[in-house]
Amino acid sequence: MAISEADARALSGIVGAANCSARAPDREQHARDASHHAAHTPDLVVWPNNAEEVARILAYANAHGLPVTPWGTGTGLEGGAIPQHGGISLSLARMDAILAVHADDLQVTAQPGLPHQDLNRQLARYGLFFPPDPGANASIGGMLATNAAGIRTVRYGATKDNVLAIQVALADGRLLRLGSRSLKQSSGYNLLQLFVGSEGTLGVITEATLKLAPIPQHTGTAMASFAAVEAAVAAVLDLRLSGLDLAALEYLDSTNTRILADAGVHIAPLPTLLLELHGGAAEAVAGGMNALRAICEAHGATAFRAATDNMERTLLWKTRHSAYEAIVRNHPGQEIVIMDVAVPISAYPELIRSAQDTLDELNLVGYMKGHAGDGNIHIELPYGDETTFVRIAMANQRIAAIAVGLGGTATGEHGVGIGKRDLMRMEHGPALDLMQAMKTLLDPIGILNPGKVLPATH
Amino acid sequence: MAISEADARALSGIVGAANCSARAPDREQHARDASHHAAHTPDLVVWPNNAEEVARILAYANAHGLPVTPWGTGTGLEGGAIPQHGGISLSLARMDAILAVHADDLQVTAQPGLPHQDLNRQLARYGLFFPPDPGANASIGGMLATNAAGIRTVRYGATKDNVLAIQVALADGRLLRLGSRSLKQSSGYNLLQLFVGSEGTLGVITEATLKLAPIPQHTGTAMASFAAVEAAVAAVLDLRLSGLDLAALEYLDSTNTRILADAGVHIAPLPTLLLELHGGAAEAVAGGMNALRAICEAHGATAFRAATDNMERTLLWKTRHSAYEAIVRNHPGQEIVIMDVAVPISAYPELIRSAQDTLDELNLVGYMKGHAGDGNIHIELPYGDETTFVRIAMANQRIAAIAVGLGGTATGEHGVGIGKRDLMRMEHGPALDLMQAMKTLLDPIGILNPGKVLPATH
Repeated sequence: MAISEADARALSGIVGAANCSARAPDREQHARDASHHAAHTPDLVVWPNNAEEVARILAYANAHGLPVTPWGTGTGLEGGAIPQHGGISLSLARMDAILAVHADDLQVTAQPGLPHQDLNRQLARYGLFFPPDPGANASIGGMLATNAAGIRTVRYGATKDNVLAIQVALADGRLLRLGSRSLKQSSGYNLLQLFVGSEGTLGVITEATLKLAPIPQHTGTAMASFAAVEAAVAAVLDLRLSGLDLAALEYLDSTNTRILADAGVHIAPLPTLLLELHGGAAEAVAGGMNALRAICEAHGATAFRAATDNMERTLLWKTRHSAYEAIVRNHPGQEIVIMDVAVPISAYPELIRSAQDTLDELNLVGYMKGHAGDGNIHIELPYGDETTFVRIAMANQRIAAIAVGLGGTATGEHGVGIGKRDLMRMEHGPALDLMQAMKTLLDPIGILNPGKVLPATH
Repeated sequence: MAISEADARALSGIVGAANCSARAPDREQHARDASHHAAHTPDLVVWPNNAEEVARILAYANAHGLPVTPWGTGTGLEGGAIPQHGGISLSLARMDAILAVHADDLQVTAQPGLPHQDLNRQLARYGLFFPPDPGANASIGGMLATNAAGIRTVRYGATKDNVLAIQVALADGRLLRLGSRSLKQSSGYNLLQLFVGSEGTLGVITEATLKLAPIPQHTGTAMASFAAVEAAVAAVLDLRLSGLDLAALEYLDSTNTRILADAGVHIAPLPTLLLELHGGAAEAVAGGMNALRAICEAHGATAFRAATDNMERTLLWKTRHSAYEAIVRNHPGQEIVIMDVAVPISAYPELIRSAQDTLDELNLVGYMKGHAGDGNIHIELPYGDETTFVRIAMANQRIAAIAVGLGGTATGEHGVGIGKRDLMRMEHGPALDLMQAMKTLLDPIGILNPGKVLPATH
């Protein structure tokens, strides 16, 4: 349903004329995220300045049946921020303040529009950081909405594990505070976690108090190459069982390391693990690095490079992060689908094997890397034509089914958005009906991010 | 509403005659938990053998309007398992099997009636343990229902942080599986956490997959005494900020250490911290212990005793655990109320000060100890007569209000049960209405643990 002039005037009245636009460039900028999903242009973009304005926008939209799709920084990978049904793109970009740094509590209270890298830049002088890091400079609100994770989750948890309290605006315009700044709370129902990961379909998060960690005083980083996938994955299992509490445990398969090696990066074209330890004492990290090396070598690591200074550490991580660019360079003019599934760690070898078989059967080129410590794998699949895309979509369905069959999930950290809606019944069974009931309870008219997360009921 | 003979026959038909009892001794055994709350006898005790029987019991109770109060081991401290409205006491005691040990995944799937100490005894041969430890031998189901925590939460999290998947029976008899064995999941709404901590008022957990940790290969334990509360608490803040990742950070105030010293325990009658480190490498723990000692000494620790062998370690922890017995011995024939509030760690000094002032004003003797690393404090208050109890109830209300005012919670880890219901509006404000709506959605007739968690609406 399109937005009328009266609606636009009313919404402009809430946020101010400077924070409301129906101009084509603004609307186009909010039509698609970083995914391959098709763009859809909103009728109007509004930039509320505070929680009360968000609440008033929702109340208005609810009363008039207007779709509202929240927007953070547009870095999502499953289309969660695409205004699939038009209506209002609700950008939180102008709500990007840090409201309070509770340094002694290792906490920060921030608005949802603040990108996490900007947050961490501002927190550095307190010696603190917000650990979840999805790679892209996602907003806090976007990270909460998708329960984003990333390379540090193996030690610090996903976004859901690093949020203590939120303020949320409901569809009917109510503003609620959920959770507590206390680390412990056994007081009533955990409503906070119902909104985290709900991708703006149950409410709009307008403020969050996040857990921080001390910037590690001592860090050890290492890269280990293995002759075969099996050896690398066996090392992953032992590293997880060692109690070494790794801060990162990343896997790069040989498709990735080969194009990196071809591009002149100093890396063996072999299955590779990237490992990191964080610690408060130098001896602790040094001792841990020795133990870690011993485990890798026991599994036949053919090369082990350790970095203890910051420059070398940065270099090792640059290798990981430049893998994506190398893929893009190797496939000029093509789009890339990024798959995201996760399984219990014991099923990681089988997931990798079955996924590779699936790609081979469908004659697809895929680059596998993953947050191995969490059993999470990403496959980057370039395509330049429709028929390849159709085969990629088939692979996506099949590999998601494999992951669910192995006790895992169709979406480890990217969310459901548009791309994974049709996999929800397979993954959740009858629990999906209770999810539908929650949606009906909290958004009876269906104004909040319609077309996302839950499959169409017809 | 009392249970009719026809009801008893129907329920006996579900679980079998040997698993259903209306005999007085059985009913009395399920009439009260470990708290000071008044007993209430159920009409019937049933011991289902599996999830399907639980579901059928609930469906029957729902159709006939019979109250159902789940029972684990009866170690609760807020009356959560007391069948306040009579009806059915649903004991999970005969559902106490380990269904699967996923050693490589550091996971176990178990039935809810299994006590956590029994679970850990069985897991020891895998070199694994379930970290949350509330002290008493609570059942897994009871720990999930109250989101129990304890001394290891500062490193390993509360029960809610250590559960990946559950099966839950709803009031209408549906059985749902929520969550995933994958460590990461960004797939739909987090319904799992809605049931964790809901104290059996939204559903009955019939199975859980829990996160485990490797039994630490190396452990360091220490006890540090301080001349004043302020110095001990200042050390707590610095220890939290150090990145040392303590596995326990416990506080005993001088009321506790004095009666321990009087009882002949080798401890200074001073504010005391008990600290523990876990690690996968000996050097890591040794390095950490040095750093930890330096922090305590910088805050003027007057004594620092470190234990690195198991016997000494056990001895130090015995000191902590014998504090309660010493209180009981010092107050023969008296009952003890155990308070439980938590605040952001920066407010810990003020909480302790204000709580002590409250006790002094009300002329009460209270023994303070706490999970300092989490900002959680317990006050043990002995009473032998009604007037003292009335003053204790006043102190409970006031100290809970102080904690909430400091950004904390009225219940850190014991749950709401009967004792904290009337504090829920103060703590949650308008969010309480959404909790009520969840209750209405999931238990429209109100059969599930009536009289708990939510305040009476009339």
